[in-house]
This record gives sequence, C-alpha cells and structure tokens, in this order.
Amino acid sequence: MPHPTRREFLASTAPAAAAFCSVPRVVRASRTLQDGVDGARVASRMEAIARFGATPEGAFRTAGSDADLAARGAFTGWLEDAGFEVRTDLAGNLIGRLAGTDPALPPLLTGSHLDSVPAGGNFDGVAGSIASLEAAAAIAASGTPLRHPLEVAVFFNEENGKTGSRALAGEVTQDEMDLPVYGGLTLGQALARVGGSPERVTEAALEPGHYAGFLELHIEQGPTLATEGIEIGVVQGIVGIRRFRVRVSGFANHAGTTAMGIRRDALVTAGRFLVAVHEETRAWPGRQVATVGRIEAHPGAANVIPGAVDLSLEIRDLEMETIEALYQRFRDLGRELARRNQTEISFEPYYLSRAAPCDPGFMDTVEAAAESLGFSNLRLPSGAGHDAQSIAVLAPVGMLFVPSRDGISHSPREFTSVSDIVNGTRVLLESLRRLDGSID
Amino acid sequence: MPHPTRREFLASTAPAAAAFCSVPRVVRASRTLQDGVDGARVASRMEAIARFGATPEGAFRTAGSDADLAARGAFTGWLEDAGFEVRTDLAGNLIGRLAGTDPALPPLLTGSHLDSVPAGGNFDGVAGSIASLEAAAAIAASGTPLRHPLEVAVFFNEENGKTGSRALAGEVTQDEMDLPVYGGLTLGQALARVGGSPERVTEAALEPGHYAGFLELHIEQGPTLATEGIEIGVVQGIVGIRRFRVRVSGFANHAGTTAMGIRRDALVTAGRFLVAVHEETRAWPGRQVATVGRIEAHPGAANVIPGAVDLSLEIRDLEMETIEALYQRFRDLGRELARRNQTEISFEPYYLSRAAPCDPGFMDTVEAAAESLGFSNLRLPSGAGHDAQSIAVLAPVGMLFVPSRDGISHSPREFTSVSDIVNGTRVLLESLRRLDGSID
Repeated sequence: MPHPTRREFLASTAPAAAAFCSVPRVVRASRTLQDGVDGARVASRMEAIARFGATPEGAFRTAGSDADLAARGAFTGWLEDAGFEVRTDLAGNLIGRLAGTDPALPPLLTGSHLDSVPAGGNFDGVAGSIASLEAAAAIAASGTPLRHPLEVAVFFNEENGKTGSRALAGEVTQDEMDLPVYGGLTLGQALARVGGSPERVTEAALEPGHYAGFLELHIEQGPTLATEGIEIGVVQGIVGIRRFRVRVSGFANHAGTTAMGIRRDALVTAGRFLVAVHEETRAWPGRQVATVGRIEAHPGAANVIPGAVDLSLEIRDLEMETIEALYQRFRDLGRELARRNQTEISFEPYYLSRAAPCDPGFMDTVEAAAESLGFSNLRLPSGAGHDAQSIAVLAPVGMLFVPSRDGISHSPREFTSVSDIVNGTRVLLESLRRLDGSID
Repeated sequence: MPHPTRREFLASTAPAAAAFCSVPRVVRASRTLQDGVDGARVASRMEAIARFGATPEGAFRTAGSDADLAARGAFTGWLEDAGFEVRTDLAGNLIGRLAGTDPALPPLLTGSHLDSVPAGGNFDGVAGSIASLEAAAAIAASGTPLRHPLEVAVFFNEENGKTGSRALAGEVTQDEMDLPVYGGLTLGQALARVGGSPERVTEAALEPGHYAGFLELHIEQGPTLATEGIEIGVVQGIVGIRRFRVRVSGFANHAGTTAMGIRRDALVTAGRFLVAVHEETRAWPGRQVATVGRIEAHPGAANVIPGAVDLSLEIRDLEMETIEALYQRFRDLGRELARRNQTEISFEPYYLSRAAPCDPGFMDTVEAAAESLGFSNLRLPSGAGHDAQSIAVLAPVGMLFVPSRDGISHSPREFTSVSDIVNGTRVLLESLRRLDGSID
C-alpha cells in the first residue's frame, strides 16, 4: 500500500491551487455557497502543521515536544488573526474565544488536538483542529455572529491519556503528572512546557453546564466511510473499552520427551481461547469488537512446551452491558477450554473506559446539516477514544467523521483528502450555526 | 511440586549410608551380587559433582566454566584411581582408557557429559558419567578384564551443541569456534580452557570402525519410566528434529475501528494453526511430537490487531519420513487456515538433526542384561538429543535410560534417585560385559 509521504501529501494539499484542480466540486462549492470556508487555507494549514515534527518514519509531535509547542504557536497565531482571544488553561488546553450576541449563554465548544503518537500521521486530531479553526474563522468573518460565545480548543495530550479534556471533566489525578511520556519527560513536565500547571492541573475541572455543547470533527480511523464511499459519518457515540490481562497456566516441559497426550501446553489452550474470542464476537449480532493483540509464551523456546501464556484481551462496544456479557462468555469459554487441556485460565481487568453516547439532538443536527449540503452520510459508532468522550460528562456532545483511506491510523500511511476535510468543515460550520439556534 | 535442593538431594545421596537406608534392595543387591558396583560411592560422587557450580537457581556448570574444569578435574582423579590412563583430545573430550586382553580389538566406549545448561539440574549427563565410571572401575577391579580396550568419555559441551562428540564424528566446523557460549566466552575459548585445541578441533575426527561400540546411560528427561514405574528404558534411538520459523502475515489495524468481519488478524490464523498442529499430531498413530514453543505478535499492543505473528514449529520422530509427512500436512493445513482469514503463512526451516537409531543387537543386549538382573524394562525412543547420536555415525550405539521424576529436566527440579542410578549402572556394567563377549 502506498505511503502518503511528502509527494502525495503535497499533491493533495499544496500548492493548494494545483491540488484543487482535481476536486473541482469543493472549490466550486466553497465559491458558490459563500459559507466562508476556504479550502486552500485548510490545505495550507494542514500542511503547515504536518511540517512540525515530520520525520521519514512519521510525525513525532507528541504532547509537550518542541514540535507540539511550535504547532500550538502557529495555531495561536491563526486564532488571533481570526479575532479570537487566546488563552492556555491550567491543563494545557489552548483555547480561543469569540464573544456571542447573548452574554447570558454558555459557550459552544469545538476543537480537537494537534499532538500525535510517535511515528504517527498528519490527520488524526489535526483535521479536526484545522476544521474547527476554519469554521470558527468563517463565523467570525461572516458578519452574522452566533448567539453563544464560541470557543475553539486544542486539547492537551489527547494521544497519551486525553489529559487536557479529562482535566476539564475533573478526571485527572495529581499523581498522573509523574507518569513518563515520550521524549524523556514526565507528563507534568510536558504540561509545563505548553504553559499548563502540573501543580494546579486538578483545578482545571469545570462544572457541568459550563458549556452549551461540544462538537468535534475527526478522521474516522476506520474503513467504513472510505469503503462505502460516504462523505460524512454521524457518530452515535464513543465505544466503551475493557481490557484484561489473561494468563493461561499449564506446565513447561521438554518438547522432545513429553508425549502429546500428557502435555499441559498453555499455548494450545491460549490458541483455542483466542480463536473462540474471535469467532464468538463475530457470531454475536451487533458491532462489538474483541481483540487479542499481545501474546507471550513462557519460557518461549522452540524446544520447550509453554508452561504459561500471557495475553491481552480487549472488548469494545457502545453498550457497557454488551461488553460485560461478552466478557462473561469469554470467561466461561476460557475455563471450559482450559479444563479440557488440564490448564488454568485467569482474567485480571486493568483498563476501563466507559462508553460515551453522543446527544441525540446533536446527531440529528449533524445529519440535517450534512443533508442540507448534499453530503452522503451514515450513523456509526466511534471505535476509538476521543476528547469528546471526556467532555460528554460536562455537556451534550456530537462528533462527525470524515473518511480515512483504508482505515489506517496512527501510522504515516494515515490519509484523508483535503476535499473530505473541507466537506467536513462545512458540515461542522453548518451544525454549529444550527445548534446555536436550537440550544441554550 | 517440590524443588529437590540441598536437603532432599542430601537425603538421597549423602551421607550415603543414611540415604541407602531407604533403598535397601539396592544395597543388599550390590552386596549380594558382588558385581563391584558401589552404591555409596555413586552417591557421594554424584553429590561431589553437584557441588561444582551449585547456586540457589540451579547448576551453572556450562562447558569451559570454572565449575566444568573442576568437575573434570575430580573425574580425572577418579579415573586415575581406578587405573585408567587419562587424556584430553583435541575436541576437549576427557577420555580414560583401560587395556583389554586382545590388543587387536577396537575399544568399547561408554560415557556421557558433565556440563550443564545454565540453571540446570544435577543429573542430566552426570548420572551417565558417574555410572560409566563406576561400571568401568568395577571391571578394572574385578580381575576379569574385557577382551576389548575400555574407554570412558566425558564429552565436551554436550548441552550447547554436542561439540566434543560431533567433533569425533567429523561434524564440527572451524567457524563454530567463534560462536558465543555462556559466560562471555566463545566456543573456542571454552574449548581451550578444558585443554582442547580450537585451532585443530577438526582433526579430532575419527574413522568409522575406530570404536567397537558405544553405550550411554542417561536420565530419561521424560515421564514415561517414572509414571509407569519401570526401572530401565531400552532406547530405540534418538529422534530426528526439524525446526521451522513460521510467519503469519495479515494486516495490523486499529482494534476499535476495524469491524470483526474485515479483519486480517494474523494471530487468529496463528491460533488456529497451532491448535491444528497439536490436534493433528495427537491424532496420528505413533509417538511423534510437535511443539509451538515461541510466539510473538506484531506490533504486540492490546489495542492493535496483530498484523504479523512469528512462531516456532518443532517436529520430532524416530523416522525422518514421519517428520517430513507431518511437516507437509502442517504446511497444507496452515495455508488452508491462512486463506480462510485473508492472511498468508510461510515456513522457513532452520534446524535439522537426523534421527539416530540404536543398534538392534545393542538393544537386545541391554534388554537381556536388565532381565538378568530382574529389572523391569521398556523400549522407548529418546526425544532429546545425546552424544550417542554423534557417535552413531562411527560405531553401533546403545542407550539406556533411568527414570526422571515427573519427567522434569534442564531445571534444578530435575531428580533421579540414587537407587535408580545404581540400577542403571549395574545394567550398564552387565551390558558392557555381554557386548565384550558378543562383538568384535
């Protein structure tokens, strides 16, 4: 599969005029509809952010890195150009604010993140941040302001713990500040570098009702929209996640001298278990997913029967009840399979992220906005976590997805075309205007 | 399961008199039969060797280590006490020789090894070396010498490449001398430390016919004898081994955003494959074994669908044809399973050890010797490799096994009782006398 590095990226983004020759509908649309979205500007800003932290192995713009600081600096400049008042809060979130016409109303919030995973791509978080900036700038320049104040957020450290958005939700604890992050920093040091306060991070928490609502655009990071040729995904919510450490215990022995019939081979049980997890998850109705991503056999030599195997088990679904039911089923299956082989199996939960449903009114609004602009659209869950998940405890949230080529993400091969991002920006803009009219 | 450390080891070996209170049959037998085997001496020598390299984690008596040198020194002293002429050959084999009555006959060879794996046990190799020494000393002291010269060998570096015995068979290449071994040495340095010659190691090769035959006693390293309560194993041969690196290739993707139905999960294929290997191997008639001992999923994160999996595959049997047929079957099964999952599978052979059948006449002799002494016995293959395998290209070979508790080996939990070793020593002695009469 091709790797969209410099050349291909440039071909789709800059010089912008040339790139848009191949997507005339977007250019015509933006000129015709005069909604203020400037496709060439979106393209050049996407490319500008991509330059910060670019390496042949992918984007290294981890939270608190020099590249992250530079990207936030550029973003600050663009927000100020657009007439926004910019601040960095205690949790390192970069926030631009534009006054509304009704000073009594809480602000509408939009935004995403600019930090990347190590060796990441150019679209995850960046597309949503640039789209939010573009939509907000279009509103600022339109002469028809919103009733609500409008805030644009670049959340701190989405990729390695959603620190900024979780701090707003009151979910960050002081001791997280000591965690190591990429680049030899602690999380607290990374936070201080972007202008936040590791000592006072817990004070960044907001009260529910502080925001009227939050709307985030993101690349899908999955293949559904691209595969089905659909322009806009209306996100139903962010799936919950449970992760378990699974251990199968048997008995390690000499691979040459131990007959097949008396082996207590932990890897045979583990193999049966992981296949059962896959098949059972496929067989159930619904969109749940379950994954064994990590496996290690002990002692791990070609000539020793594995005496123990460690595996990871992850289950995701929009409904926590489905996750729980699947887990119970896997546990029963695992025990049955272990018994057959004179082995044992144990499950230790180590990670829980609760499902965050999107607001039904927000879903309807995004869908109607997409329809009004003539974009094909589909309701779908988000299998990945997002800042919207944290904000959901403070305010109603909505999300919209734009297509990811081949569903690839967290990789330099991540790719979304500029026209898809511009389409999404226009739906985001239209949705913000509609929400401004419909909610208080 | 208990760990036979100091206390239990002492209880079974030394002070020898106390230990033998619990195995009166052996003591009485050795006194009554007057075959010259001294159970108390076997016990104290086993214990003496065990002291060299003993640590709380197990025996560290790797080839060329200080502990190995010391153990060989003790063995040299015992051989000289028994009237043997001792030399170390170019390949580091320690060899004691006793003249026979017919100077025209080639020597009969017996022996094993004293080196251990790192963190090994006290019986693998040591039991056979001490048994050979004891049987040879009994012959030397008996006043009824053999017709053949008798040689007792402690082979160099059995555990990490059978270097000494393979050099006699002409199978060691000069470049092996540069291989790293335990303790920060190269194999050549380890060889020089025991008095061999890394420069001239290939000159250690002998012509077929140099020896009249070779007989080795070894612990079973498997559970068959101990489980079935049988005293002597008559070894049919040493199984052949083939090892493969197996790679399953799929496509790595986000575990949250990639629906179950479109995954190309390499670990699901790998799981199906390793279960099929186990079940197919059990289903075939015969004593073949196949093992997947090592597995690694890439990239190996809980939230990423494995895009590739590496596994080891090992197949052992007395018949190379059975190994080949199983491999073909596994390859076909693997390809079929990979196709079902839109993944691919490849096999790369990286290790071959040809099966070495024991001489039928030697098997009959060992069996008859065991019967004559009243010991229960069973014919069985050796699933592990041994020095006898190398010598088989030079001369007819035979092997006899004594029971391993729970079949555990290469572990400090390895255990064989002194009475079992003494039983084996007496069968070894009787077999050597019978072979001396029957072969030329």
